[in-house]
Amino acid sequence: MILVPLPRLRIEPLVRNALAEDLGLAGDITSAALIPAGHRSALHMISRQAGVLAGFDLAALAFRLTDPSVSIAQIKQDGESLTPGDVIATIEGSSQALLTAERTALNFISHLSGIATLTSRMVTAIAGTKASIACTRKTTPGLRVVEKYAVRAGGGVNHRFSLADAVLIKDNHIAVAGGVAEAIRRAKANVGHMVKIEDDVDTIDQLQIAMAEGVDAVLLDNMLPEELRLAVEIVAGRAITDASGRVTLETVAEIAASGVDLISVGWITHSAPILDIGLDAVIAPGE
Amino acid sequence: MILVPLPRLRIEPLVRNALAEDLGLAGDITSAALIPAGHRSALHMISRQAGVLAGFDLAALAFRLTDPSVSIAQIKQDGESLTPGDVIATIEGSSQALLTAERTALNFISHLSGIATLTSRMVTAIAGTKASIACTRKTTPGLRVVEKYAVRAGGGVNHRFSLADAVLIKDNHIAVAGGVAEAIRRAKANVGHMVKIEDDVDTIDQLQIAMAEGVDAVLLDNMLPEELRLAVEIVAGRAITDASGRVTLETVAEIAASGVDLISVGWITHSAPILDIGLDAVIAPGE
Amino acid sequence: MILVPLPRLRIEPLVRNALAEDLGLAGDITSAALIPAGHRSALHMISRQAGVLAGFDLAALAFRLTDPSVSIAQIKQDGESLTPGDVIATIEGSSQALLTAERTALNFISHLSGIATLTSRMVTAIAGTKASIACTRKTTPGLRVVEKYAVRAGGGVNHRFSLADAVLIKDNHIAVAGGVAEAIRRAKANVGHMVKIEDDVDTIDQLQIAMAEGVDAVLLDNMLPEELRLAVEIVAGRAITDASGRVTLETVAEIAASGVDLISVGWITHSAPILDIGLDAVIAPGE
Amino acid sequence: MILVPLPRLRIEPLVRNALAEDLGLAGDITSAALIPAGHRSALHMISRQAGVLAGFDLAALAFRLTDPSVSIAQIKQDGESLTPGDVIATIEGSSQALLTAERTALNFISHLSGIATLTSRMVTAIAGTKASIACTRKTTPGLRVVEKYAVRAGGGVNHRFSLADAVLIKDNHIAVAGGVAEAIRRAKANVGHMVKIEDDVDTIDQLQIAMAEGVDAVLLDNMLPEELRLAVEIVAGRAITDASGRVTLETVAEIAASGVDLISVGWITHSAPILDIGLDAVIAPGE
Amino acid sequence: MILVPLPRLRIEPLVRNALAEDLGLAGDITSAALIPAGHRSALHMISRQAGVLAGFDLAALAFRLTDPSVSIAQIKQDGESLTPGDVIATIEGSSQALLTAERTALNFISHLSGIATLTSRMVTAIAGTKASIACTRKTTPGLRVVEKYAVRAGGGVNHRFSLADAVLIKDNHIAVAGGVAEAIRRAKANVGHMVKIEDDVDTIDQLQIAMAEGVDAVLLDNMLPEELRLAVEIVAGRAITDASGRVTLETVAEIAASGVDLISVGWITHSAPILDIGLDAVIAPGE
Amino acid sequence: MILVPLPRLRIEPLVRNALAEDLGLAGDITSAALIPAGHRSALHMISRQAGVLAGFDLAALAFRLTDPSVSIAQIKQDGESLTPGDVIATIEGSSQALLTAERTALNFISHLSGIATLTSRMVTAIAGTKASIACTRKTTPGLRVVEKYAVRAGGGVNHRFSLADAVLIKDNHIAVAGGVAEAIRRAKANVGHMVKIEDDVDTIDQLQIAMAEGVDAVLLDNMLPEELRLAVEIVAGRAITDASGRVTLETVAEIAASGVDLISVGWITHSAPILDIGLDAVIAPGE
Repeated sequence: MILVPLPRLRIEPLVRNALAEDLGLAGDITSAALIPAGHRSALHMISRQAGVLAGFDLAALAFRLTDPSVSIAQIKQDGESLTPGDVIATIEGSSQALLTAERTALNFISHLSGIATLTSRMVTAIAGTKASIACTRKTTPGLRVVEKYAVRAGGGVNHRFSLADAVLIKDNHIAVAGGVAEAIRRAKANVGHMVKIEDDVDTIDQLQIAMAEGVDAVLLDNMLPEELRLAVEIVAGRAITDASGRVTLETVAEIAASGVDLISVGWITHSAPILDIGLDAVIAPGE
Repeated sequence: MILVPLPRLRIEPLVRNALAEDLGLAGDITSAALIPAGHRSALHMISRQAGVLAGFDLAALAFRLTDPSVSIAQIKQDGESLTPGDVIATIEGSSQALLTAERTALNFISHLSGIATLTSRMVTAIAGTKASIACTRKTTPGLRVVEKYAVRAGGGVNHRFSLADAVLIKDNHIAVAGGVAEAIRRAKANVGHMVKIEDDVDTIDQLQIAMAEGVDAVLLDNMLPEELRLAVEIVAGRAITDASGRVTLETVAEIAASGVDLISVGWITHSAPILDIGLDAVIAPGE
Repeated sequence: MILVPLPRLRIEPLVRNALAEDLGLAGDITSAALIPAGHRSALHMISRQAGVLAGFDLAALAFRLTDPSVSIAQIKQDGESLTPGDVIATIEGSSQALLTAERTALNFISHLSGIATLTSRMVTAIAGTKASIACTRKTTPGLRVVEKYAVRAGGGVNHRFSLADAVLIKDNHIAVAGGVAEAIRRAKANVGHMVKIEDDVDTIDQLQIAMAEGVDAVLLDNMLPEELRLAVEIVAGRAITDASGRVTLETVAEIAASGVDLISVGWITHSAPILDIGLDAVIAPGE
Repeated sequence: MILVPLPRLRIEPLVRNALAEDLGLAGDITSAALIPAGHRSALHMISRQAGVLAGFDLAALAFRLTDPSVSIAQIKQDGESLTPGDVIATIEGSSQALLTAERTALNFISHLSGIATLTSRMVTAIAGTKASIACTRKTTPGLRVVEKYAVRAGGGVNHRFSLADAVLIKDNHIAVAGGVAEAIRRAKANVGHMVKIEDDVDTIDQLQIAMAEGVDAVLLDNMLPEELRLAVEIVAGRAITDASGRVTLETVAEIAASGVDLISVGWITHSAPILDIGLDAVIAPGE
Repeated sequence: MILVPLPRLRIEPLVRNALAEDLGLAGDITSAALIPAGHRSALHMISRQAGVLAGFDLAALAFRLTDPSVSIAQIKQDGESLTPGDVIATIEGSSQALLTAERTALNFISHLSGIATLTSRMVTAIAGTKASIACTRKTTPGLRVVEKYAVRAGGGVNHRFSLADAVLIKDNHIAVAGGVAEAIRRAKANVGHMVKIEDDVDTIDQLQIAMAEGVDAVLLDNMLPEELRLAVEIVAGRAITDASGRVTLETVAEIAASGVDLISVGWITHSAPILDIGLDAVIAPGE
Repeated sequence: MILVPLPRLRIEPLVRNALAEDLGLAGDITSAALIPAGHRSALHMISRQAGVLAGFDLAALAFRLTDPSVSIAQIKQDGESLTPGDVIATIEGSSQALLTAERTALNFISHLSGIATLTSRMVTAIAGTKASIACTRKTTPGLRVVEKYAVRAGGGVNHRFSLADAVLIKDNHIAVAGGVAEAIRRAKANVGHMVKIEDDVDTIDQLQIAMAEGVDAVLLDNMLPEELRLAVEIVAGRAITDASGRVTLETVAEIAASGVDLISVGWITHSAPILDIGLDAVIAPGE
């Protein structure tokens, strides 16, 4: 699947904001005091762990917004696997600017590559099944677009970007509506026929009701593998089957083997550790 | 130490932005379709894991900005310990609004409580020593202020908020400047005498040079415990000693025992998993 | 179908921006010079034409942001029909504030009610058929969310809110891809299976190819009624049928009679004249 | 009269906002999936109706912000007449970018050219008289600056940009102030002598009072042609005469013949249908 | 002349921005560490110098945005004279919030009152003449609206708010246009007849040319009092006469005595020292 | 001391905002009407007074944002002394753009150079002493970063940028805390050991208490020279000594002679008159 690059219009405000946050009011006083204004350097951006790259454009933009004359040779692309020591890119420019933008660049790329890497491990764990790994709305506030991009870079797919994208009927909705059937009926009566409806079901009984009413997708919540298999059998291709809950690197293969279409996982976005990526000076010649 | 609440002026833009991100263009179509407009509910905010609370004001603001009539009874305060099942707060208001704001509220509070929890574990691990756990500038882009607050909620302290706060001389600065002594001299010549200077040293030799030049703090980078002890002895109270590198929950006690003042850890902010916090309907009576 | 109110978070920036635009740098110098500061009035918001109301919350917010003490009694709801002379609401507050906010309030409500009215006429014209009237991305820049809301208020449905919502394959895409079949194949290979794919077809031949490849919806572009009937027959419920082009108040009934699901119309948003709504002073007593 | 181009500083935020609105969170997924990244095309921007061009810079900026390498050959200028089939410009660049920016570019230029075209028809209808066609503050919220520019492109002139520009005394002001004379006196007492005062009069009697008090302009509201002629006679060049109300393409010539200086029309901005402008692929060569 | 209050919509962004600037990332750490959270105080806002008040609403808003529960009793109004020791207002609220907002509130009110005071001295110096004191576009970047308001509070009037308000022909325009007459002709040909034209003249000869062409106002630049008198005689009420250059508190009376309508002074906005205003604790009772 | 340039990311929003403020809604109508579009000029930026330059980058950016093709030859650098008639830079570009950006550019550079000049006079007055001139938080709202930069350009140093930078215990804090000793103790207990604590003392007695408790700096408020000398003797290098109050160009030398480290002055930022800088046309050849 093609990985659509993030539009510059979307990422530029994020990078400007992050740079401003790190520059504070007086700017990078260390580099200004120690590094001669005209001094230039080259840095290697290096992976220090195995993983999958994501967010290179944000890192590159951090350097470009700090020094428009920077020259960047990109070697690894978002979505590619990294092994420790891999050179991701070479960045050449004003030494002051490189040191000023370094932390912002790394904060973006290591966070997003961490998400891509975790996603990729899940995708690898279910290779050979028909299932896809999907992320949720459990993302870091303000970074949803780029975190969902990182999931795609890791081989996963995206569920709803926002509450506006589709109907997802959850426990609390069902409780207020007075049952699964009534909840689905209200959804059908009140949204357009271009909007998909997904229903959260905890039991096979609820699933039977949902399928009787007709929905586009069912969220099979916290079901055991044998329940999932039965659910897939009952649905029989009439809706997308989406497993959620109790998903770990250890359990995911068995869940996928049940035949579900999607496995939704919150922690690939909300709890991914960073991928360790660093910047090494290639040459720092005398002035 | 008193935990200064985050000013509303600082957090309101973050919460508005996160809500807008989650509302998308058409808003919460599920709640609108299923929940009668006048229906009201009460939710318990519950901790599902043991940890330390942080970010309650952001979660509360997510509800208040969605429904100004919401009524919130806060039971646990930021910085307090949580055990599984603890009720953090009761929130009563329009059912539609509660369901609409739920994810945004939880995304903030579970992320920040995750950081506070990890920090707190580190702080506990070094109890009885004179050391403090400090965070770094390795934070999630756009969230530095609230993540540093979460570190304080967990009992940690904050290092530089931005590049403007103090001089921190690192390897690359030293390489360009042509040595530790020259780097420190340039710093002293070029910043005001109200600005603190911290120097990164990798070896005891570098430390000796730094102390001979005179600095406010030394970052003891990747030193073994015995080196740290020697470094603390050499510094002898003339500068703040700040250990960094190889810091884990397992190693931190031995590092602290060396007598250093600070232990700087990037991963308490950049790689903290969330603390699992949920919202349970207390009563969802018929309409 | 329930009309989901626009979230305040979405409309407040639009209203603030419009008020600022109208206040200029020095504010409403006429009202300040002529109206005593403490003077209060009541206004009737009156429909001067027959139509459908949309955008009341934006108008009300214009008054509230100018005078927080304003008291508004809303009589007509968005989506309701209006006849000339209908009182939509009574607004009571500071006379200065009412006169200051008047134009901004009316600019929003008359523009959006104009769109709702035009949509409603189209919806009425096809009453009894299974077709819905859908709007497009041909909206006024900056106002897409509220214009699409106005379409819903008028009884219509919304097509894509943005380029990110679904795949819509148009002539130019097909030309570059080298044919309908190849375009559809690339779409299927490169987007997730939660994303709907709609294909623009100009001829029955193209339609046959699209249906053979399999798509979620077909945009039947500029087809004559008899072609549309044939197309609906060919599709036979396997995809949503969406007619576009040559749609006017005169032709729409015949198009709907062909059995299509959707009729997409750009001009209900981009060329709708306003609905004439005014504000009449109820009482303007001496001071 | 020279048509002053809109400053880039003014239009860039509008275009960025409109592009962001159309890109949604995930960007143009269709073009990304179907069009090879390196593919380039050329488009002709073509007028499909007769009219007057306005807003070219906004359309061009939509392309430039999406693809900085785009090359644009502008053939028609804002303010020039268009006949169906006229090529307005040729745009060459990345095929993906052209398709992504297309709708935003067209939404601006077709909306603004629609206003210029309607204005131009009114201006043509009164050719040979001394009157000018003026727009009002009845503009689309957020777009006042560019819509007033479009009026100028169509040969019209601009009335107040905002409430701060001049005093305009209307019915409600007069009612509260207790009469035309008192309203004018308050205005004169309370604004600087650099500020123009215009008074709205409904009758010849009110006009006599206004002229006795002395004003810079009179808004002759809903007067019949013979009343307008009498009003112009009474004013005798001592104030600008400004006719308003009952102005249509049919009536405007007779109104202008009365000798008034200005004819103010709200619907040239608030109810102008778009001018149909499209983009045709010139060449879409193989990759 | 009535002093129109600044709209809240205009001043709120300025006050929010200034508070954010002063809160930095971690907020008011001193008040948080020293002042108990529930402690309340009352402050007197006191004038420490003689002058004229301006900007009270901005100061009050700084307190209100920091503590919505603050209670403010305003005693002196903008535009009123102050003598040393005058109590301007009493402010009661959370002690922490009062100390946090104090500097922002004072920075606004002392800066704007400084401008009002200087303006007022100029106005007093020319009492009994027909002249008004006008400010220019030489204002502090970002604060033009509030500085021009302060000039009005001091009894002055405002010249152009921006380059868009009127034509002002200066030396460089004349040089490029090739003479005063040609410059005026171009202006008349290229702007609407609602736009005022002011011409800068250095000599009586240039004034004669300008009056022959016809302009709305003449800027009499750097003329001696006797030249100004001659200029006023020549203009004879056909245009507004506006004296500029060499204007000081010492010279202004003689300039005004020449009979000019306006005296434009840049330094009342760009070089006004602050008016010293302070906050004294009224009562700071124990907790 | 090296003068760190202001990051473009920090100044660009200020310059864009100031340009937008001056362009109003319709832009520079004078230059558009009088100056042919293709006409180019060169301007000399000239100092008309003796002083110190600050803010050149903001002025240059005003021109560059208005005309990207402008060519600027900078002759004088920020921090350099100017004598009347000195050419600071030559600016060549579109005549329209130069005239449009002129006032914004000059408003920035003359305001900031005014601050640098006043600071420089103070610095010169204390030459030969060990004291530095420091600015305070008494800055123009919204411009703190650039005004503090101007102080550095004038040879001064910066105190706190914001309330978050350090603890500064003032009279009101002491009153609520119940004495100097208790206030210092609360500060030490409640802030991290990386945060500096400065205490405001009015008397030698208070100073003795503060030194007994231990603080990083003492603000010696309104002390006479002999008291300052005694205070410096008591402190004996254990803290930074910071004199404040009664500081004028006349008194500053005697204050500095007391041996204090810092002299804090509010009026170098809040009451500095501008430095008169102008733009002269070098050549304005015929078209």
